[in-house]
Amino acid sequence: MAGTGGWVLGVDSGGSGVRVSLARADGTARSAPVSSKRPAVVAERGIDADSLLDEVLPAARELMRAAGAEELAAAAVGAAGMATLGDDLRAVLPGALREAFGVRALALAADAVTAYAGALGMRPGVVVAAGTGMIALGTGLDDSGWRRADGWGHLLGDAGGGAWIGRAGLDSALRAHDGRPGGSAALLERAEALFGPVHELPGQLYPRPDRPAVLASFAPAVGRCAAADPVAADILRQAARHILETAAAVRPVTATANGSCRTALTGGLFKMGEPLLGPLRELAPEVFPEAEFVPADGDPLLGALRIAGALASGTLSLPEDPALLHVPMHVHPHSQM
Amino acid sequence: MAGTGGWVLGVDSGGSGVRVSLARADGTARSAPVSSKRPAVVAERGIDADSLLDEVLPAARELMRAAGAEELAAAAVGAAGMATLGDDLRAVLPGALREAFGVRALALAADAVTAYAGALGMRPGVVVAAGTGMIALGTGLDDSGWRRADGWGHLLGDAGGGAWIGRAGLDSALRAHDGRPGGSAALLERAEALFGPVHELPGQLYPRPDRPAVLASFAPAVGRCAAADPVAADILRQAARHILETAAAVRPVTATANGSCRTALTGGLFKMGEPLLGPLRELAPEVFPEAEFVPADGDPLLGALRIAGALASGTLSLPEDPALLHVPMHVHPHSQM
Repeated sequence: MAGTGGWVLGVDSGGSGVRVSLARADGTARSAPVSSKRPAVVAERGIDADSLLDEVLPAARELMRAAGAEELAAAAVGAAGMATLGDDLRAVLPGALREAFGVRALALAADAVTAYAGALGMRPGVVVAAGTGMIALGTGLDDSGWRRADGWGHLLGDAGGGAWIGRAGLDSALRAHDGRPGGSAALLERAEALFGPVHELPGQLYPRPDRPAVLASFAPAVGRCAAADPVAADILRQAARHILETAAAVRPVTATANGSCRTALTGGLFKMGEPLLGPLRELAPEVFPEAEFVPADGDPLLGALRIAGALASGTLSLPEDPALLHVPMHVHPHSQM
Repeated sequence: MAGTGGWVLGVDSGGSGVRVSLARADGTARSAPVSSKRPAVVAERGIDADSLLDEVLPAARELMRAAGAEELAAAAVGAAGMATLGDDLRAVLPGALREAFGVRALALAADAVTAYAGALGMRPGVVVAAGTGMIALGTGLDDSGWRRADGWGHLLGDAGGGAWIGRAGLDSALRAHDGRPGGSAALLERAEALFGPVHELPGQLYPRPDRPAVLASFAPAVGRCAAADPVAADILRQAARHILETAAAVRPVTATANGSCRTALTGGLFKMGEPLLGPLRELAPEVFPEAEFVPADGDPLLGALRIAGALASGTLSLPEDPALLHVPMHVHPHSQM
C-alpha cells in the first residue's frame, strides 16, 4: 500500500460541521464526502481534538471499508482557527491518526490553506477565501513562504467579507431610520422584513455569540438591493475594492512568466453573483492589474486531499509554516528518490 | 418641606459606577456627589433595581443627614441602557424611593437625557453624548418630543465615537502590517506598543466581554498620531463629520428665533481636544450650519438633579417618553398653580 497508490484522508473542519473524504494519493480516485453537522467543540484549549476525532474516526472507517483500504498513507486536516486555536489538534492528532489508521504523514492546515490547495493545487498564485470573513493567501512556492492579508475578524478587518457587507448594509438602514446622510430606504425595508423593527435590532444582535454570522446574514439582502439602490451598489463596490486590495497585497514577488498572477476567488460570498462580481471585474484592472482570474479547481476538502496526497508522494511544494501549514509527520521527498 | 425649597435626589448610573447627589429643588444648593465604583448589576431582567438601590439608599441617607433633609420631594435616576434594560427599575424604584424617603415625584431617564439636561437644562437644542459610544438627542420642547439619532452600538453605528475611532485606527494598523492600502505605520507602532504583536490582537480582543471599551482604548492613540500622520488625521475628520451629521439629524424642527440651534458636545471623547475639535469646527459650517455651539452647563448628574428639581416644582418641560424619560410619579404643573 506504499507510494502513490496508497489511500489518503482529507478533513475539513469548519464552524458548521466536519467533512471527511478519502482518495488515492495520486488523485486517481476520490470518495464522496461524509458530512457531519456537528462542528468540533471550541473549548479553553482551543479546538478540542477529541470532539473532532469523534466525527472523523467513524467517517474514515466507513470510507475505508467501502474502498477496501486497510491503512492510510497520509492525512491532512484543515480547520478554521487552526493558527490560533490549534494547539490541542497539534498535540493529539499525530498519535491518534497513526494509531487508528497507520498514518505515516500528517499535515494540519489553516482553512485558508486548504482553500488555496483546493483552488490552485500546488501552483503559485493568490487565493481569496470569503464567506462571513475574508482572507487572502499567496505564494510563489519559493523561500518567501506564504503571504497572508486580512482575516482579522469582524471588528479588526475581514474587509469586503459577508459580515462587513451586512454591517455596512445595516448601518445604511439605521442612517435612513435616523435621517442621517448615507441612508437607504430600501435597505431599511429589507432590514425590518428580516429582523423586525430596527429599534429592537441592538437587543437582538449584541447578546448573541454568533454576531458575525448575524451581520453576514444581511449581505444577500444588500446584493438583492444593488440593482435598484445606489447605496447598496456602493457598498458592494467598496467591498470589491477591499477584496482586490487584499488579494493584490499577497501576490507573490516572483510573478509567473508573463507577469500575470493566477488568482482564484473562493467561498460562499461569491455566490452573490453579479452584484459583487460586476464591480470586481470593473475594478480589477485598476486595483490588481496582474490578476489572471481562474476558476477554483475545487473546495477546501479537495485541498485537504491534495495536501495529503502530496505528502504521501513526497511532492508537497506548498510552504510549511507553523501557523498555516504544520507538518508534524513527514515523508521527506529525498526518501522517495 | 414642600414646594421649591424641598430637597431632590439625582442619580447617575453608568457602566463604571453610580453617582448620587442632593440639591434644593430650586437649584440654590447642591451637595458634592457621592460615588460608588460598583456599577448596578445587569442581569436577565436588565438593570437589577436592588443592586442599584444598594448603592443609592446609603449614599442618599448620608447626604440627607449632612444636609438636614428629612424627606425628598422628587428624585431622578439616569441610567445607561434605561430604554432597553430598565424594566426592573421601572417596576421597583417608584415604591422603594417613596417608602425610603417619601419621594412624591420620580423620573427614570436614559443617560442621554440626563446628559441633555445637564448640558442645556430645560432649553431647546441638541446634545451630543460621546464616549465609547455616540448618540445625539434634540428637542424643541414641543409636541414633537425627542429626536434621537445613532446610539446603535459598536456593530451597528455609534459613528464617530470612541470605539469607532479606535477600530478605524486598528484597521489602519493592520492594513500597514498586511501591506494593504490605507495603512499607517505610525498607528501600527502605537498598536504594538499598546497591545503587543498585532497577530495576537484577535486572540486578545474577541474573547473579551468589553470589546467596545478595548476598541475605544485605542482612540487616544489615534488622537496623538493625528498631527503627524495623515491616516490618523483622516480618521478624526471622518469622525467629526459623523458626529456633526448625527447632531444635525436631531435638530428641532422649530428652530430658535434667529434660525440657529443651541448645540452642546458632551462626554469623555471630547477630552481628546484639538485633534477632534479642530475638524469639528472646520466641518460644522458645511455639515451643520445652524449649530451654535455652547459649553455644557454640567454633567449627567447635574442633569438628574435638574430633572428632579423641575419635577418637584412642576416645571419639567423636557418631553416625556416611555423609553427616554419616564415619569411614573408626577407632580402635575396645574396642581402648583
